Amino acid sequence: MYNIITKKKHGLKLTKEEIDYVVKGFTNGVIPDYQMSALLMAICINKMDEEETYNLTMAMAESGDMLSLDSINRITADKHSTGGVGDKTSLIVAPVASLYGVAMAKMSGRGLGHTGGTIDKLESIEGFDTALSEDEFIEVVNDTGVAIIAQTANLAPADKLMYALRDVTATVDNISLISSSIMSKKLAAGAKVIVLDVKTGSGAFMKSIEDSKELARTMIDIGLKADRKMYALISDMDRPLGKYIGNKLEVYEAVKLLQGEYSDDLYEACEYLTALILVGAAKADNLYEGREMFKDAVKSGRGLEQFKRFISAQKGNTEFIDNIDSFVNVKSTIEIKARQEGYITHMNTEMIGLAATYLGGGRATKNDIIDPDVGIQILKKTGEYVNSGDVLAVLYVNDEKNLDKAVKTIIASYQIGKEKPSINDRHAYGYFDGLDYKSIE
Amino acid sequence: MYNIITKKKHGLKLTKEEIDYVVKGFTNGVIPDYQMSALLMAICINKMDEEETYNLTMAMAESGDMLSLDSINRITADKHSTGGVGDKTSLIVAPVASLYGVAMAKMSGRGLGHTGGTIDKLESIEGFDTALSEDEFIEVVNDTGVAIIAQTANLAPADKLMYALRDVTATVDNISLISSSIMSKKLAAGAKVIVLDVKTGSGAFMKSIEDSKELARTMIDIGLKADRKMYALISDMDRPLGKYIGNKLEVYEAVKLLQGEYSDDLYEACEYLTALILVGAAKADNLYEGREMFKDAVKSGRGLEQFKRFISAQKGNTEFIDNIDSFVNVKSTIEIKARQEGYITHMNTEMIGLAATYLGGGRATKNDIIDPDVGIQILKKTGEYVNSGDVLAVLYVNDEKNLDKAVKTIIASYQIGKEKPSINDRHAYGYFDGLDYKSIE
Repeated sequence: MYNIITKKKHGLKLTKEEIDYVVKGFTNGVIPDYQMSALLMAICINKMDEEETYNLTMAMAESGDMLSLDSINRITADKHSTGGVGDKTSLIVAPVASLYGVAMAKMSGRGLGHTGGTIDKLESIEGFDTALSEDEFIEVVNDTGVAIIAQTANLAPADKLMYALRDVTATVDNISLISSSIMSKKLAAGAKVIVLDVKTGSGAFMKSIEDSKELARTMIDIGLKADRKMYALISDMDRPLGKYIGNKLEVYEAVKLLQGEYSDDLYEACEYLTALILVGAAKADNLYEGREMFKDAVKSGRGLEQFKRFISAQKGNTEFIDNIDSFVNVKSTIEIKARQEGYITHMNTEMIGLAATYLGGGRATKNDIIDPDVGIQILKKTGEYVNSGDVLAVLYVNDEKNLDKAVKTIIASYQIGKEKPSINDRHAYGYFDGLDYKSIE
Repeated sequence: MYNIITKKKHGLKLTKEEIDYVVKGFTNGVIPDYQMSALLMAICINKMDEEETYNLTMAMAESGDMLSLDSINRITADKHSTGGVGDKTSLIVAPVASLYGVAMAKMSGRGLGHTGGTIDKLESIEGFDTALSEDEFIEVVNDTGVAIIAQTANLAPADKLMYALRDVTATVDNISLISSSIMSKKLAAGAKVIVLDVKTGSGAFMKSIEDSKELARTMIDIGLKADRKMYALISDMDRPLGKYIGNKLEVYEAVKLLQGEYSDDLYEACEYLTALILVGAAKADNLYEGREMFKDAVKSGRGLEQFKRFISAQKGNTEFIDNIDSFVNVKSTIEIKARQEGYITHMNTEMIGLAATYLGGGRATKNDIIDPDVGIQILKKTGEYVNSGDVLAVLYVNDEKNLDKAVKTIIASYQIGKEKPSINDRHAYGYFDGLDYKSIE
């Protein structure tokens, strides 16, 4: 280990054998934290090349169970978002894509910090089971075409250990380490088509489109080497996605979309992600056709029907869907009003995500218990003109303990000025089809 | 701590407050090893500037006791070697310099790996006490002008903890970290004049003169900022110093020198180091005068007399001095002979030091017990012509367990070729007088 640290300290390339040794040794406790953190810092500063990044990803993927989805009777696809605020696309995209002969066999995570997690959202539905066994998981996918379960403890355990160490040693923000963390779990989860949604902006880890493209390209490169079909959307997270943040609120918004009532940005994200999956699975000839298939599914109501089947197959009570307006229940709602008139020039989306956490809708630390009903409705976003007194957002509140902090955070997250900001009105900026990037105009 | 690691990861300068926080936090256990090793790696790769290095040194020095030598009735001086093979200069220089009104109040370390330690050498003398209390230490220095004791546990404890971590995380070889490690102990030990002996070559940590000069300059800079008088000798460690390696063997060689029988390289090293101390303490007007004072002390026998007083004052039995030829006793001696004729083109001095350790004369790990009698006599050095069968070295052996390994290591450490190598015949290459470097011709 000492020699491996020394090599990376001097910027030299690590061999596959060396990387395997590090990942195995760290996972089984032979390599202590303090040596691993020294190596991680050397990697952050001196970088890893494509081959090292691929070898690291494979070693991490192989540190635990590698799921075989071979017994699934359709082509398998997975979709992964790099994390954001108000991102409920999986709830919509997975059932809709599954309508067209793609098996959406998906493992998801829980929320932490300002970002939400699909599993938390699904668990806000009465009875919904996110802990199916591997056999049940495959059976449900074969039956209905879609299932979303929580990542099992033995999916890429090396990643869990490494991430916990990176989180406290300032070694998170390195493209190779971020890519291998995400892709090790995706490769271990077994799907043949992988569609990444790489978020960019104030609520995302990557703050610029260029950084997001580099991250997407690195992950795609890993997936292609591992013989997967790889696609990525580069999409906006400079504003929250859609109008709602919070677990039940996001399920509510997903159902509303499938019922035909939606905000354009959320619809556009789901349309492109579904289209990329359908193209990747060879169910659509091109992106245009894939987008039309998404639109048809929503318009015809078949998307909503499939959503019901998906919830039902995982033991969820679907009654709430037909009574969706009474799904979310809180003690009080509080309006946040603009204190001046002008254009909203910027939203600090990460702060808005944190405000939802303060209300109890997210986790500050892994063991926090979340309140599924609380959250935030966003009424005004960057670029809009507001008068003093206009409602910017509505807080859905049960526990008032950190309410004051949440209110202050929301107010501070909005910047209002005289000049109309020049913003990109699109939600989806562009996409990768394999290693080729295409801008969406 | 997270933010401090992040700053250094991005190559930014740390403030005095941040460095104090790190050193205090790590020493009292608030900052865990894995965060410290990440920071140390970032420092190794992105470096620290002069001010950061000084602040780190002071924080480490102040992490434990700061000795006050104010009650010593003469100007105080210390001498430190960066470590080598066969370096017994302290045994000679400390008593000789103390003849001229300089208080040599010195703390030394034990040997580890291929390098020996002054404390181990002194402890090979019957009765010699290296663990005087602070009051006894000062009393002995006031009485005789010289004392050498082992570093106490509370001298720069931050350095001990940091060094142990650096040693296993490949974060040793950084000039700022090496300098702060050495200088924190020297500053805490309190002497006003500090003379450094920075070794260069195959048996030293620094392999080139340029690197040695940079290390010397960095340490001098720290000492000057802390208001000490700073001098440094840059001297050869491409060959072992003198003819003997091993604890009693080195005491033997030191006594022999003071009795007028010596090898030129050892004499020259002691002459320059003593002269630098005398100039620094304003007891000699210039280096030439200081060198003459050293020569006088040896020639007159006053150096030997003072050596006796020094040993006696620290409870050592001085009888061995008058019977020096029977001081070292081993079960057997083994001659290592040249297997071919030619010039000795190179000696791997570090390997020779390790061979002495294999014989039991040094420590592979901190808790090893050493055998004071064993060691190596070096008969031939780089540049000399040898015939096949000529004795290169003699091993002094008690335990034959690792004898084979020691023999092989010695043989491998000598390179013999046809071409006479071009080597620097000097032992002392140059010196720093404050920040000015002067080459010795």
